Formats: sequence, C-alpha cells, structure tokens
Amino acid sequence: MAATRKILELNAFDMRAAAGLDPDVANLVARRRRVFGSASMLFYTRPLNLVRGEGAWLIGADGTRYLDAYNNVASVGHCHPRVAAAVSRQMATLNTHSRYLCEIVYTYAERLLATLPRRLSNIVLTCTGSESVDLALRIARAVTGGTGFIVTENAYHGNTLAVTEISPSSASREPRNPHVFLVPAPDTYRTGSSEVGPIFAANVRKAIGAMKRKKIRFAGLVADSIFSSDGIYPGEPGFMAETIANVRKAGGVFIADEVQPGFARTGRMWGFERHGLVPDMVVMGKPMGNGYPIGGVAVKPDLLETFGATSGYFNTFGGNPVAAAAGLAVLETLEAENLQANALEIGAYLLTELEAVAQRFKRVGDVRGKGLYLGVELVRDRKSKKPDRAATTRVVDMLRDRNILVGIAGPHGNILKIRPPLCFARDHADLLVKGLSDSLATLDSTVEG
Amino acid sequence: MAATRKILELNAFDMRAAAGLDPDVANLVARRRRVFGSASMLFYTRPLNLVRGEGAWLIGADGTRYLDAYNNVASVGHCHPRVAAAVSRQMATLNTHSRYLCEIVYTYAERLLATLPRRLSNIVLTCTGSESVDLALRIARAVTGGTGFIVTENAYHGNTLAVTEISPSSASREPRNPHVFLVPAPDTYRTGSSEVGPIFAANVRKAIGAMKRKKIRFAGLVADSIFSSDGIYPGEPGFMAETIANVRKAGGVFIADEVQPGFARTGRMWGFERHGLVPDMVVMGKPMGNGYPIGGVAVKPDLLETFGATSGYFNTFGGNPVAAAAGLAVLETLEAENLQANALEIGAYLLTELEAVAQRFKRVGDVRGKGLYLGVELVRDRKSKKPDRAATTRVVDMLRDRNILVGIAGPHGNILKIRPPLCFARDHADLLVKGLSDSLATLDSTVEG
Repeated sequence: MAATRKILELNAFDMRAAAGLDPDVANLVARRRRVFGSASMLFYTRPLNLVRGEGAWLIGADGTRYLDAYNNVASVGHCHPRVAAAVSRQMATLNTHSRYLCEIVYTYAERLLATLPRRLSNIVLTCTGSESVDLALRIARAVTGGTGFIVTENAYHGNTLAVTEISPSSASREPRNPHVFLVPAPDTYRTGSSEVGPIFAANVRKAIGAMKRKKIRFAGLVADSIFSSDGIYPGEPGFMAETIANVRKAGGVFIADEVQPGFARTGRMWGFERHGLVPDMVVMGKPMGNGYPIGGVAVKPDLLETFGATSGYFNTFGGNPVAAAAGLAVLETLEAENLQANALEIGAYLLTELEAVAQRFKRVGDVRGKGLYLGVELVRDRKSKKPDRAATTRVVDMLRDRNILVGIAGPHGNILKIRPPLCFARDHADLLVKGLSDSLATLDSTVEG
Repeated sequence: MAATRKILELNAFDMRAAAGLDPDVANLVARRRRVFGSASMLFYTRPLNLVRGEGAWLIGADGTRYLDAYNNVASVGHCHPRVAAAVSRQMATLNTHSRYLCEIVYTYAERLLATLPRRLSNIVLTCTGSESVDLALRIARAVTGGTGFIVTENAYHGNTLAVTEISPSSASREPRNPHVFLVPAPDTYRTGSSEVGPIFAANVRKAIGAMKRKKIRFAGLVADSIFSSDGIYPGEPGFMAETIANVRKAGGVFIADEVQPGFARTGRMWGFERHGLVPDMVVMGKPMGNGYPIGGVAVKPDLLETFGATSGYFNTFGGNPVAAAAGLAVLETLEAENLQANALEIGAYLLTELEAVAQRFKRVGDVRGKGLYLGVELVRDRKSKKPDRAATTRVVDMLRDRNILVGIAGPHGNILKIRPPLCFARDHADLLVKGLSDSLATLDSTVEG
C-alpha cells in the first residue's frame, strides 16, 4: 500500500540493515525479518521497541516515553482500564458466535445505532474495517445492480482484494480495475475552501458520465469525510452535499467510510455530520473497540433486506460478546470522559498553535484539520506550493528523536499526520508544538548553516 | 451463505415469529431483529439465550447447561482461563499495530511456524480467516499471474467479496465468477475410500483443462483437507497427493485452508499432514486465538517476496500484541493439556461409539471423520443413499431439547456435524452418543407409531 509504502520509502527502517542499532533492537529486527519477511514494514530508521502503553503514551523497553500523536486505534487512550476490564470480564464469561442470543451484543448495537441518523437503523458487525468496507461494496452492488465505484485518487479503504481495488494509494503498482473511477480529493490548499465543493461535485459528475459511456453501471461513491490518505481535507461544512445529491440522482449509494473520522475524532461523533448528510451505509473499524478487532456496517434496513434476498453473509466472530463488551466500553468512555468535546477543544487549540508555528516557518504551507485529526503540509515554497517530501521525512525523524510520534499523509508524502488518542490534553499539545517548532528550527539552521 | 442458509431453512428460528417463546427470549429476539434485521440467522426454533461458557459447556440464562459439540472457535474450551488471562494481561499492558517492534509477536510467530513444515517459514498475520484466504488469493494471483481457482462444489472459505466467489456454498444465489471452477468433493460414502483419490485427481485435471480452453490462467486449488462444508470427508491418508502434484505441474499453487482442520482438531496439528503434503500457503483462522480474532497466512518466503514486489499489504491490527498473546496461550494450552492426543483418542472413541449407533439405526448411512471432527450422514435408505434432510433437522432439534448442540453439513443438509471443543472428554462423548441414540429411537417410534 502506497500510504504505507510511501512512508517506507521515506523513513522506514531498512529490514536488511542492522548496523548501529542497540543489540536488543537488532536482535528483534532479525527475528521479525525471519518470520515476517523483508517486506514487512517497520517505522523509523531507529525502530521503536515497545513494552507498554498508557493514555497518550507508548513506553519503550529502555523506559523512554513516547508521546503518541499518531495512533487512532487506541482511540480513547492506550490500554484504557475501562476497555481492558470489560474485555477481561467478558473473555472469562462468554465468547461465542452470533447465532445464539446474547444480551450484551444487542445492548451494544442499540447504543451504537442511537448515535447515528435514525434511517441507519440496522448494523452488521464484522471484525475489521476492511471486512466492513468489503461487505458495503457487496451490498452496494446488490442494491444498485452496478459495479462501478468512485473514490478519490489517493484513497485507502482497506486490504481485501476487492477493497484494495478501490484503494489507489495501496494498489498503485497493480493494474487498475476498470470499474473503479478516480476523482481528485477536495484539496482546499490548492483550490481554495469555497471552490472545492463545486469542483468535487463536477469531478464526480464527470466520473459518472465516463462510467456511463463505458457501459458500467454506477454503484456508488466511497469516501471518508476527512480524505485522510489523500492529505487530510475536512473542507467547509456541507461542501459534500451537492456531490452526494448527484450520486443519488445517478442511482448510486454513498458509503461513508468512518474508520478514520468516526467515533468522535473530528469533534462530532461521525465525520459525515459536518456535511448534514445521511449516508446509505456507514463503515466502522479501527477505533470502535480501542484495539479489540471489531468493525461494522450501519445500513438502511431496505438495503440490507435487498442484499439478504440475493446474497448471504455470515461473520463467525463479528458481533461476538467480547467485541460488544469492548465496543460498549469505548462508547461509555467517550461519554464519561467527554472525549468528543475534548477532541473539539484540544483540536482547536492545537490548530491555533500550529498556525502560529506556520507563521514562523515558511516551509509550512498549510495547517488544516478538524478535531484531533490535523495535517501540516510542508512545501518548497509557499508560492509554488511544491511538496517537500524530504523535509517532511526529516521532521518525522527529528520528532521521533524528541520522543514524539506523528505520521505522514498525502500522495507526495509531505503532510504531517497528527492523529493522537482522543485523551490528548493541552500539555500534550504543547509538547507536540514545541517539538515540531524545534525540529523546524533545527532543519532551517542545518539547511541554511 | 448456503452452509448457514441451509441450516436457516432447516431449523433456524423464524425472526418474524415469537409465539410460545419465553418472554425474556422473545424480548431479546425482538431487540436482535430490530438492530440486525430479519435476515440475521439464529439457530434453533427455540433459540438459546446464553450467559456463560466453560470447557465444553455453554450455559443459558435459566441455568441450563448445553453440551457443546459444535463450536470450533473456542477450540481449547470456552473461556479457557489461560487464554483469558493472557488477553487480560496484554490488553492492560500494550496493544498497538505491527509497525513498532514488540517481542511477544515474534515469539508467537516463531512458535507457530515451528509447528509447520520448514519451507513455510514466513507468516502474515491478519484478524480473521476470511482476511487470510483473501490475502492468499492475492498472493496466488501475483505469483502465478493466473486468476483461475478450483474449489469443491459446496466449499466455504470465508465472507469477503473475493472469497465469497470461491465459496459456492454461500454464493449459490449469486452469479458465478467465470474464473472459479468447481469439482465434486471426495465423497467416500458414495464412491468408496480407495477410489476418491484418482477421481478427485481426474476432476481437478479436467477443471484445469477447461480453464485452459477458456484462456483463463490457472492460479491454484483451495481446499481444506477435511472438506468440511461439503460434508466432512477426511478420506484416506495421502489421497490428495496426486491432485496436488498435478496442480503444481499445471503451474498452480495449493492453498490449504486450515481454518477448520487446523490447530490439532483432526489429531494432527494440521490437516494437510495426513496427506504428506507441503502446501504453498496455509490459511489459519477461527481456533487460532480461541475466540480472539486472529488469522494468518503461512507462506513460502519466495512467494511472499514475489507478492511484495508488485503489491502491498498492511493489516493495522493483524499481529497486534494481544492477538499474539491469545495465540501463544492457545499453543501453550494445546501442549499443556495434550489436546492433540485427546482429539485423536476421544475422536476415535466417539467414532467407534457412533458406528455402534449406526448398527442400530438404519437411518444412519455413514459415520466418518478424523479426530474431533465427525459426520453422521442420515439417509432415506442405505441402498439409494438418498439424503434425509428432514430427519437430520429433527435430530438436531431433538438433541437441542436434550441440551446437546451439534451442527449440519453438506449440500443436502443431511450430515450431523460434530465438532466439539478439543477438551471434549469421554463422558462428554458418552452423553452425546446417548442423546443421539435416544433421539434416533424417538424418531423411529414417532414415524413408525
């Protein structure tokens, strides 16, 4: 996958190398390489050897504490005691498949569905986001009779065979499935906030037209509302509305991939809420169980019924009692710790602070995002807006040397991806901002010196 | 999926009905129906409402203890304390993705690979069996350049879009992918033990020929060595060898789906061992984490390398530390409790006892299986061997009324599927045999009376 492969090109550890590493780390790298092969990707030229996690922190074998501004799976915080306790309790009580009755599963499904628009009143539980997107594609094909899907140019939606085909960021070296049509992401940095809505709508309309000319029936549009791997573009509230209206007019469905923006990350429970939309399906994954593998597809009942009439679906362990316990504990934690409000508040604070950093370093072309999903785009110069991949790699490594973890997004690998656990606090934000600012200063002095 | 859909037709609860149910059960059924939709399948006309599991037992809300002779996920026993403790400990310590180093993950991978033939020295960890089969298909396509797969007529390999296409038992109402070729399962009951080998080889050869004529390049054969959903046919040791040699000669790979027979169920660690084979890929799922979602593809390193050169794969939570802890605890339990030997010993005992039952009831056409995966085939009469679906449904329901859980296999829904946790003991086997014998006697007297 390009999203990861690009990072691999940039700043991943070369599995064939071991020189200069701490002997314990070198030993683990060798063991890893033996079992997983050389293609298995490891972050950083000096890989982290982790032994513990707590809140926004990951802790290394040597006691180093890393501030985690990257992980969205442990979304309510690493090893959250409420989730760990719920999983432990349920693991010791009952864990079986979904063909028997088990109350906790329905309690969870009810609470989860209560967070969604009323029309999305059914849910199919799976084990992963990839399984969920894959199922959503099957449902979309069944209800529309179509096979043509539209996604953005650098989208990533998961890892199954079918989902890889709608994930151009990970399938860049494979032949493209001719039923998959790509549109540019709504790049607010290069085209301006007010224009992306009409441009995006026009591009989707064009893709629907191209599909028609090739006699491919339109099935739907798959998008996460923050355009995560394209480069983090939340855009103005409502900008997707025209596009989605067109999708429906053309007979397609809108599948909202909420694996990234969902579960309060953007300061709302769901990313699509910012656009005033009701998707036909909502796909959930990663943060749903704070690390316990669980995913789901929320769907309008008539769509599920149509699918069920021609196809079958059974997921042995989708919606097992332990997954439900984990999911329930996540919902409870979001509420008890007010994490949605925290994402909004700390996200806004962090955005303001990053904008201040941008004032001081001309390398920073743009700072954007929503809630606790922010992007910092590094460019060669602000006029050409030419992506600066090399500087981005350097900054990620320099932050790692300062024990701060961030990622990279975008097709040019020049956007710092800041996506911390939702328990991120003001002092965590301050540490991150200081680390970034120091790194940029060092980079300037190195280059200029 | 037909495997489950057929059971649905047979003896599943009709989600629209609620008359005559215990009010608590009726209430749960209504809640379930509201969230999952009416297509979501529930076993039995009187569904089980479960609250606890332990060893070979599932326990209902009213205190009823059900002997579980069906579940292969909780393979080392429901809520096994060693697995529950390992998961609890690791959940509270560290749970993150695989792009950082984490020793327990490699320790697990090493132990797991040590149980496999030496040439299968790499593993890709995933979250489910379906994700694993899906990945194996992608690898097979990449290394052979082919797209044509051969599977048995009623195979079930998983639930993603691509895997559903090679799962005729679940895709029976969907249009068949023209790249998928079906061969009859090695039905030892109807064709005899010594003949199935050559017949199976001839059928696969024919399918390869048909593929060639349609200019579809052969990618591989996917089979679980016990032909589970086809009707449970372990066959004589070695009978698959000729077939696999032909597959390789024709440029294809052999993908062993060990989701069903793997992890000691048949009395060997892996089902393919009975045939003296080294598969090109081994797919793992269900029992691997005793309920914690984990899957994997063991693969020859050169295949993985070829795949990695043209494709990318990343599974956020495949091989996370908690999954590794669960997997490790399962391997330790298999060893500490001698479960492989137990599967062999109790399986042989149970087979003998079931054969004795078959002597007494002419409805039983055949009893077969290996280790703790046994099938009892019910027929109208032994001469025509005509499947008796109705009687099978009745027996499953009568066993449920005796608090014993078994399943159904085969395209005609006439094979009792006996696949208990591996901790099944002699007295459990006796209970099951008595329950079956009583049910068959009651059935005879009802029909004849």
